[in-house]
Amino acid sequence: MSGLDRPGALDGLHAVDALRAEVCALHERLTRAGLVQWTGGNVSGRVPGEALFVIKPSGVDYDELAPERMILCTLDGEVVPGSAGSELSPSSDTAAHAYVYRHMPEVGGVVHTHSPYATAWAARGEPIPCHLTAMADEFGGPIPVGPFARIGDDSIGRGIVETLREHRSRAVLMQSHGPFTIGSDARDAVKAAVMVEDVARTMHLARQLGETLPIAAADVDALFDRYQGVYGQQADR
Amino acid sequence: MSGLDRPGALDGLHAVDALRAEVCALHERLTRAGLVQWTGGNVSGRVPGEALFVIKPSGVDYDELAPERMILCTLDGEVVPGSAGSELSPSSDTAAHAYVYRHMPEVGGVVHTHSPYATAWAARGEPIPCHLTAMADEFGGPIPVGPFARIGDDSIGRGIVETLREHRSRAVLMQSHGPFTIGSDARDAVKAAVMVEDVARTMHLARQLGETLPIAAADVDALFDRYQGVYGQQADR
Amino acid sequence: MSGLDRPGALDGLHAVDALRAEVCALHERLTRAGLVQWTGGNVSGRVPGEALFVIKPSGVDYDELAPERMILCTLDGEVVPGSAGSELSPSSDTAAHAYVYRHMPEVGGVVHTHSPYATAWAARGEPIPCHLTAMADEFGGPIPVGPFARIGDDSIGRGIVETLREHRSRAVLMQSHGPFTIGSDARDAVKAAVMVEDVARTMHLARQLGETLPIAAADVDALFDRYQGVYGQQADR
Amino acid sequence: MSGLDRPGALDGLHAVDALRAEVCALHERLTRAGLVQWTGGNVSGRVPGEALFVIKPSGVDYDELAPERMILCTLDGEVVPGSAGSELSPSSDTAAHAYVYRHMPEVGGVVHTHSPYATAWAARGEPIPCHLTAMADEFGGPIPVGPFARIGDDSIGRGIVETLREHRSRAVLMQSHGPFTIGSDARDAVKAAVMVEDVARTMHLARQLGETLPIAAADVDALFDRYQGVYGQQADR
Repeated sequence: MSGLDRPGALDGLHAVDALRAEVCALHERLTRAGLVQWTGGNVSGRVPGEALFVIKPSGVDYDELAPERMILCTLDGEVVPGSAGSELSPSSDTAAHAYVYRHMPEVGGVVHTHSPYATAWAARGEPIPCHLTAMADEFGGPIPVGPFARIGDDSIGRGIVETLREHRSRAVLMQSHGPFTIGSDARDAVKAAVMVEDVARTMHLARQLGETLPIAAADVDALFDRYQGVYGQQADR
Repeated sequence: MSGLDRPGALDGLHAVDALRAEVCALHERLTRAGLVQWTGGNVSGRVPGEALFVIKPSGVDYDELAPERMILCTLDGEVVPGSAGSELSPSSDTAAHAYVYRHMPEVGGVVHTHSPYATAWAARGEPIPCHLTAMADEFGGPIPVGPFARIGDDSIGRGIVETLREHRSRAVLMQSHGPFTIGSDARDAVKAAVMVEDVARTMHLARQLGETLPIAAADVDALFDRYQGVYGQQADR
Repeated sequence: MSGLDRPGALDGLHAVDALRAEVCALHERLTRAGLVQWTGGNVSGRVPGEALFVIKPSGVDYDELAPERMILCTLDGEVVPGSAGSELSPSSDTAAHAYVYRHMPEVGGVVHTHSPYATAWAARGEPIPCHLTAMADEFGGPIPVGPFARIGDDSIGRGIVETLREHRSRAVLMQSHGPFTIGSDARDAVKAAVMVEDVARTMHLARQLGETLPIAAADVDALFDRYQGVYGQQADR
Repeated sequence: MSGLDRPGALDGLHAVDALRAEVCALHERLTRAGLVQWTGGNVSGRVPGEALFVIKPSGVDYDELAPERMILCTLDGEVVPGSAGSELSPSSDTAAHAYVYRHMPEVGGVVHTHSPYATAWAARGEPIPCHLTAMADEFGGPIPVGPFARIGDDSIGRGIVETLREHRSRAVLMQSHGPFTIGSDARDAVKAAVMVEDVARTMHLARQLGETLPIAAADVDALFDRYQGVYGQQADR
């Protein structure tokens, strides 16, 4: 953007371009954290103030992602004709992302992976109990399991929304499938995807050699309230 | 190849050169995914329209692979005299690859690794049940186990072919040995090698702490049909 | 520093600058060893001869750390006004680090992570028995468990100090939370963080398939005394 | 060495320089394969035709190793006075390496690590059964366990030699301690260190979910004989 004097830094066009760059770059966090294999997994982000979101194309190598190959979609999950990348097919999970954006207006980002430890809990249909302070900080309670649902219609999206509405957790383990996470923006949803795998792994390891110790509900609440309130830099919130 | 105006982009010579480059590059996907150690593992690809395939040399460091060191073989597993790389010995698994190409004309690529989780199921002689949507998508059912077979004659190849003919899976776990995968081309077989280790790991983790939930056969079929039909970009298919 | 002729290489200002650079660089060892996820984990180091220490800012990406963004704090955990980085909030674990520095004058560095294997033992509230020669060398006995404590006041710091005072170990597993390590300087505390995860992992793996063999107390003592006395280069000690 | 016209490429001095470079470079294979943490682990190589070997210095970061910092030792484990690197202390395992070179003249390289899966078997004092074709190929049978021995005198070296003399394996798991491997040269010993961790991991994973299937002794023999005879390139042997 050097050399260009773009007016209206917050206008719609600029916002979409900035979001394409951010959503594209965030995919690298999935590979770096070992959450995805081959072309699996996807990140999307809502265009601020618009009924649109940006999502990864389907089946494209992580090395070959680029901002202009991210796909701009309506909240019905339809590709916006003529937009950059519109010659590509969007992620095969687009309908689920769209459903979440339609029904959870506070959500600005959605991530889906098959990260191994979180998916292992999902394959047993077992919620992850909140027995780590890091889980209380980040998720405020257990990570719930959502229903088994076939891909391709609204059932996955509906399962995500109905499960998350009843929990403080920004992550849900879809049965036999894998985790979906939400956030205030795409970056926040990616953080939740990284952290749900981290706590899924630690709780898995802990349970392998015996029982884990519970944390009192009042302590979970206090940890969650504090972390949501004071962690990080003011500019981040 | 810049600066060269090669005629006949699809002639035999060019096709072999392109395949050498692709097969060589694909080996990096094995190391990146942690599927191989030292000089173990190998990728091969069939020369389109020819009774030939290209395979990794035996016992050469992954860092020292180069397109001109890939070995061109006949479908009997014999090195083509005078071809680039023919001064090197081909992979010690060449006979098994050749057998697959001779008996499965639809196969364009073969991969073999000792990836740890898939090999662990092979060491128990236990098929991996299809209890993950990602398995249904990619393999359409369980990953079968092939017979124990000594290396060096046709027994490994025969075991691979006889086992895979009875399954939709592109991966077979050869007992006490490790996975072999096939694909429409070398890249597709590498994808199967990456994905069989991924699902072997997730199913391993899931089973460590309890039983996994089955997926109904009709759902497995629906997931497989959909994934084979619509995932990825049209140009990929 | 080339081109600058700094007088007083050991004066306070220079010592703080050198420590900022060292503490910043040491964070890369946490990511390289896989001990931390996202912005979790933190390293601090005491300013030699001063009632001050330097610590990571809260919630900043590991890629964006820089010496001038490390935070200078008093031993009460207060940011030194006007110092470089003082516009940022220090790590949310600053109070615990400060407590350790106030009560353990021999400590020059403190590290905290949620590394998965060590945290798994912490989630069960189970000390790691000293059944590896590497543990005897490095820690001189078992890795103890400290009490459950809420973040934000002195309880974590007090739990660390009271537990470590009764052991030769430079690492403590805070219950349901994760490891804290101490050292003669920041680098030594980072080494302890790396090694506690390593031995937590090896002991975890060993216990998964049966009982581990004990090491006689006299052998533990001999290994510890020798390692503390003769390992490494003289200049390191 | 460019610009220098060194006579006597095979004289002792050149051989030592070449060996320093090779032993130094081989340490990178330990870190790349995840076999070592911090400054742990060491590689040594015998100077061809001389009663000397080259080994890593003690407690030096892997990033700071250099050929001229490798230490030249006699077969009694004494540093050769005045040689490059002689101002540094050699690895604290030098006595064990020296013992092996004195008593096994066919050995040209020795490696020691605390790689996690191999060390886990060592902590239980349990040999790794030969239930993988890759183990039969590489080690020709089970990986044996050597006695518990304190560091610092000849007991470790004696335990290694007495155990390996009774097996085809180039790897021994010293009880409660970790693996030592030998080879025809330093590179071959490093290969054995990489492969013993690989098979220790796969057998660990396999055993976690049930029993592994045995391989008939005649098959183990056939696999071992074939692999030792024909794997790799002629120039390698």
